[in-house]
Amino acid sequence: MLNITILGNNSALPAFGRFPTSQVLQDQDNSFLIDCGEGTQMQMARYKIKRSKISHIFISHLHGDHYFGLIGLITSMGLLGRTQDLHIFGPALLDDIIQIQLKSADILLPYPIYFHPLLEEGKVADTNKMTVETFKVDHRIECWGFLFKEKKNPRTVDPERAKAYEIPSSFYSQLHKGEDYITKKGTIIPNESVTIANSAAKSYAYCADTIFDTRLVEIVKGVDLLYHETTYLKDMEQKAKDRYHCTTEQAATIAKQAGVKQLMIGHFSSKYDNLDQFLIEAKAVFENTILAIDGSCYKI
Amino acid sequence: MLNITILGNNSALPAFGRFPTSQVLQDQDNSFLIDCGEGTQMQMARYKIKRSKISHIFISHLHGDHYFGLIGLITSMGLLGRTQDLHIFGPALLDDIIQIQLKSADILLPYPIYFHPLLEEGKVADTNKMTVETFKVDHRIECWGFLFKEKKNPRTVDPERAKAYEIPSSFYSQLHKGEDYITKKGTIIPNESVTIANSAAKSYAYCADTIFDTRLVEIVKGVDLLYHETTYLKDMEQKAKDRYHCTTEQAATIAKQAGVKQLMIGHFSSKYDNLDQFLIEAKAVFENTILAIDGSCYKI
Repeated sequence: MLNITILGNNSALPAFGRFPTSQVLQDQDNSFLIDCGEGTQMQMARYKIKRSKISHIFISHLHGDHYFGLIGLITSMGLLGRTQDLHIFGPALLDDIIQIQLKSADILLPYPIYFHPLLEEGKVADTNKMTVETFKVDHRIECWGFLFKEKKNPRTVDPERAKAYEIPSSFYSQLHKGEDYITKKGTIIPNESVTIANSAAKSYAYCADTIFDTRLVEIVKGVDLLYHETTYLKDMEQKAKDRYHCTTEQAATIAKQAGVKQLMIGHFSSKYDNLDQFLIEAKAVFENTILAIDGSCYKI
Repeated sequence: MLNITILGNNSALPAFGRFPTSQVLQDQDNSFLIDCGEGTQMQMARYKIKRSKISHIFISHLHGDHYFGLIGLITSMGLLGRTQDLHIFGPALLDDIIQIQLKSADILLPYPIYFHPLLEEGKVADTNKMTVETFKVDHRIECWGFLFKEKKNPRTVDPERAKAYEIPSSFYSQLHKGEDYITKKGTIIPNESVTIANSAAKSYAYCADTIFDTRLVEIVKGVDLLYHETTYLKDMEQKAKDRYHCTTEQAATIAKQAGVKQLMIGHFSSKYDNLDQFLIEAKAVFENTILAIDGSCYKI
């Protein structure tokens, strides 16, 4: 099971108490931070996200509303005595921006940062429970989307039952994969007798900032949750295009064509105080739509 | 008259809802931003400080809790269509940090930034109503304090009375300075008859982050308001020294020796939730002490 918590949902300017873009995706082991606008560390404190659990940070592009909070978070992690590795993925120049600021402050962090410049599409991270792929999106500057795919064995071993059948724990990894066990006497213990079926592995696609681009349909096909930006309402289609952004209707069209299970919209322009119309317009095209609201947490 | 508004009062880590260091000093013409920790632009929105009125920004040093909010503020000013000049004063490397981030985002600001690297002590800014001097303070890295001195003529012309005596407006600047007017017939119009006495020009000293340093006594002598950091309570004197910071007692000692009118303390460590003891300890040495509390506005 995955959880996604919204720390910020606004574009460009913070407004109406809405913070710039940042989200935390959590599996059972790790927290994955996706973008990190100014104030993200304050939002983490407010919404009880543990900084120490963040193992990977993904920065889609170098517009400030997506990364100006990163250097503060990095230095705070150091002040809090972090020792575990931190993996950061983003455009190559981001590393220079981090380094010049650490150097200016004469800071030696007590933990290692592994910076992974995003150079081509494909798998960039692989943990016990998750793979992360990156894909290019079409924005005013170099910009990357991220596709998170939970790794899950189809079955979980029930240790009590496995023990009753005297199955050695060295065989558990095969049980996880669905294999039957054969005893020394040749008796077949059916996998179903000692394992429980897992729910399906989940997937989450984060499309960052992008112009309306039907190329994304193939990439995000069938995901459990698609995050797609909706900087503007549908009457602002030309402005959206000019600024390499999308409208509600365009985001919902991608969701519909890709057959995703659910759509989450965000990155709202600071010109909008009330967000109700975003939901109405997106739902008219794709019913199962939710708003990325600061502080909200959704199960995927 | 000057006003000072506290936007953030915390050191290093934001904590207990307290933001990192930032203050706005306002005279009748301009707003002067002093340090700009992460989230300063959000605090400005919260406390109704107009970004457009900020003409000068002073950054004391390149520890993140004093400047990580600057790049966000600069870019937001651009997005809001600012056209007027912005003067930024800080350590030389700050310019590189700003430039690399503007370049990465491919941003051309619609207004000019004049960056003034702080290189030596002395006057760095001079407006219609204010002069600003900088002075070195002793911190772990290069660090600067700022001394703001209001410019004020001793007298203000009362236009109705000046008119009644038929004094030409070309003579008003001399009236401002306290001179008498002599009519064509040789009659002396005493200055007091056509002008009103102004209140005294005010002064504000901002000592940034500093170790206990009695050299500051001479520099801030007699100011109307002294801001001095008190990262720790008095029982942490050794830790304060090790980290180039000060305690309550040390800050109050500087205020007392310098004979300032009022002391404001701030830059509290994130280890303290409640700040009452800061005030108690400082007042024991220097009675007229106030706390720099986020959102509070004091008249100088």
